[in-house]
Amino acid sequence: MAKLYFRYSSMNAGKSTALLQVAHNYEEQGQRVRLFTAAIDDRYQVGMITSRLGPQREASIFDATTDFSVEDFTDLACVLIDEAQFLTPPQVAQIHKLAQVRNTPVICYGLRTDFRGEPFPGSAQLLALADDIEELKNICTCGKKATMNIRVDQHGRRIRSGEQIVIGGNDSYRQVCGRCFYSNIS
Amino acid sequence: MAKLYFRYSSMNAGKSTALLQVAHNYEEQGQRVRLFTAAIDDRYQVGMITSRLGPQREASIFDATTDFSVEDFTDLACVLIDEAQFLTPPQVAQIHKLAQVRNTPVICYGLRTDFRGEPFPGSAQLLALADDIEELKNICTCGKKATMNIRVDQHGRRIRSGEQIVIGGNDSYRQVCGRCFYSNIS
Amino acid sequence: MAKLYFRYSSMNAGKSTALLQVAHNYEEQGQRVRLFTAAIDDRYQVGMITSRLGPQREASIFDATTDFSVEDFTDLACVLIDEAQFLTPPQVAQIHKLAQVRNTPVICYGLRTDFRGEPFPGSAQLLALADDIEELKNICTCGKKATMNIRVDQHGRRIRSGEQIVIGGNDSYRQVCGRCFYSNIS
Amino acid sequence: MAKLYFRYSSMNAGKSTALLQVAHNYEEQGQRVRLFTAAIDDRYQVGMITSRLGPQREASIFDATTDFSVEDFTDLACVLIDEAQFLTPPQVAQIHKLAQVRNTPVICYGLRTDFRGEPFPGSAQLLALADDIEELKNICTCGKKATMNIRVDQHGRRIRSGEQIVIGGNDSYRQVCGRCFYSNIS
Repeated sequence: MAKLYFRYSSMNAGKSTALLQVAHNYEEQGQRVRLFTAAIDDRYQVGMITSRLGPQREASIFDATTDFSVEDFTDLACVLIDEAQFLTPPQVAQIHKLAQVRNTPVICYGLRTDFRGEPFPGSAQLLALADDIEELKNICTCGKKATMNIRVDQHGRRIRSGEQIVIGGNDSYRQVCGRCFYSNIS
Repeated sequence: MAKLYFRYSSMNAGKSTALLQVAHNYEEQGQRVRLFTAAIDDRYQVGMITSRLGPQREASIFDATTDFSVEDFTDLACVLIDEAQFLTPPQVAQIHKLAQVRNTPVICYGLRTDFRGEPFPGSAQLLALADDIEELKNICTCGKKATMNIRVDQHGRRIRSGEQIVIGGNDSYRQVCGRCFYSNIS
Repeated sequence: MAKLYFRYSSMNAGKSTALLQVAHNYEEQGQRVRLFTAAIDDRYQVGMITSRLGPQREASIFDATTDFSVEDFTDLACVLIDEAQFLTPPQVAQIHKLAQVRNTPVICYGLRTDFRGEPFPGSAQLLALADDIEELKNICTCGKKATMNIRVDQHGRRIRSGEQIVIGGNDSYRQVCGRCFYSNIS
Repeated sequence: MAKLYFRYSSMNAGKSTALLQVAHNYEEQGQRVRLFTAAIDDRYQVGMITSRLGPQREASIFDATTDFSVEDFTDLACVLIDEAQFLTPPQVAQIHKLAQVRNTPVICYGLRTDFRGEPFPGSAQLLALADDIEELKNICTCGKKATMNIRVDQHGRRIRSGEQIVIGGNDSYRQVCGRCFYSNIS
């Protein structure tokens, strides 16, 4: 039986790199995979999965209207989804069934929580349904494991409220540990 | 820095046994712990944490009105919470801060999802904030890993809708794998 | 395909409790399991697996002459082996094949290293071959995770050399973290 | 307290990619790391850590004579060691102490077993002492998780005996699952 996997992390842990490596591993064995990323993520280029180490490649894009239950996944060894925090809960149910019933492994990479410490709805549903959950570990500037994210403005001041989704690069989001999250760091 | 731990599983995996073992391990070292369980859980006896292997012991009870940010946790090596799926999301935020800011480790044991496959709000928040997530594994009757739960009536017929919380024993809930969850098993 | 599982820990983590819980979980589903423990372990009673929480039950015993490749494992849902650090490396190869080729899951519980910090040969082979490795976590008196074991004599003085195997109870072995292991604690 | 980490896998799982990502993550935070790889590994270039996705960078080299207890690790946030299966057991003890006593985290990446299914001595010692063990997962051509490695000659025929260490590229080693390892695949 195939599984639904969720690899979660804070910002800048290397999720896209890990995804591209898994795709490479399958293809090196002569197996086909299909890659998805969120249309909403235009930090680099829409429809590209980009590792901060350099490598990048094209991917199908999904948005809130994508129906994974009718996509063609014939002859695929694996489906890989980046920026999976942007999946809707019904989409997570679709890919959960894809793994359980249609026997296609699905590996999702995404953030757990936003800069306010609130779960992304897609991640909450992935954490609830995934057969296998693994953290991609990252570090806070204080040296502890980073589990949360904060948002800082162009002057480096922390922003504590606002909309959940404001896509941006390293300049506006930063991973921190729980203790630093609750501290008064700006 | 102390951590917030979440050990999740499907029904009947041995969560209470694991909790009682951890309490024993601390106390054997001469350290004090405090145990909590949900007032709502009266399968065995209110305020008792009961292992299906036999051992049981008293615990403080929590309900939706409990404020963990004002409880006295002085000189405790660890706080252990059973039936943690019944925590409210604000209570999860309280114990997250207890670990991060007041440096007291908190270990929670709970179910991920209900018989409809929907996350318990407390578990969703624990999965979003816990520093360390681990699955207590269990098996489906088909031999695969059980990740979901189903509800069956007194005649063994599956119930697919209704309220999230209906406390009961082994006779009315059963753990299954994802494939069996989506099948027509009654 | 069945798997070989190794659950390792330092002393007094609750390995036997975990094993008894898994056996209970299988049997509650109407499935048969077979339990083994080391003949060499006579802390409680030869051929008994005993949880420090109280529960205990009989088990088959193994010693260095046991050949797991000729044991009868027909109609078993799972084989559970306690004190697995006392397996010989060839026995680990036997149970690895049992899982891979004969499709019977085998779950082993054992210590990683002895009081000198040297791996037990059986554990080293289990760590090398197991399909799934998981640590049962335990704590040092200093509050950190205990990963090592020390041996102390009847006066509480630490013993740093000697034979690997000297079976005994809580009075002569104690789990510690790596830092305490290298310190001059007596 | 710093930890010794061991990330193990079969061949071609992406160990070097993962190492380079972690180095990048630290450096992006303004922290210094030091990288090591085995002198013995000349598949790409001596003293280079090379990701199969493309990125590569220079590293210090170690061989059996390297004494990690006298290396200068001042002001380092982390030490990263690739091809860690080639460490000697005493070197593993040195880096274990480096983490526990001198408080410098060390993350090692390496293979568990050779093409005969025998553990590398360095990996066996890392599995025995590491504070945190994690598998980098990879797949067999049959679709199952690859946990073992096989060696094949230039005609694709399997080689079952010989020296443990014969450095080479993808053409002569291949990762397989346990079932395929024990089968008669050539």
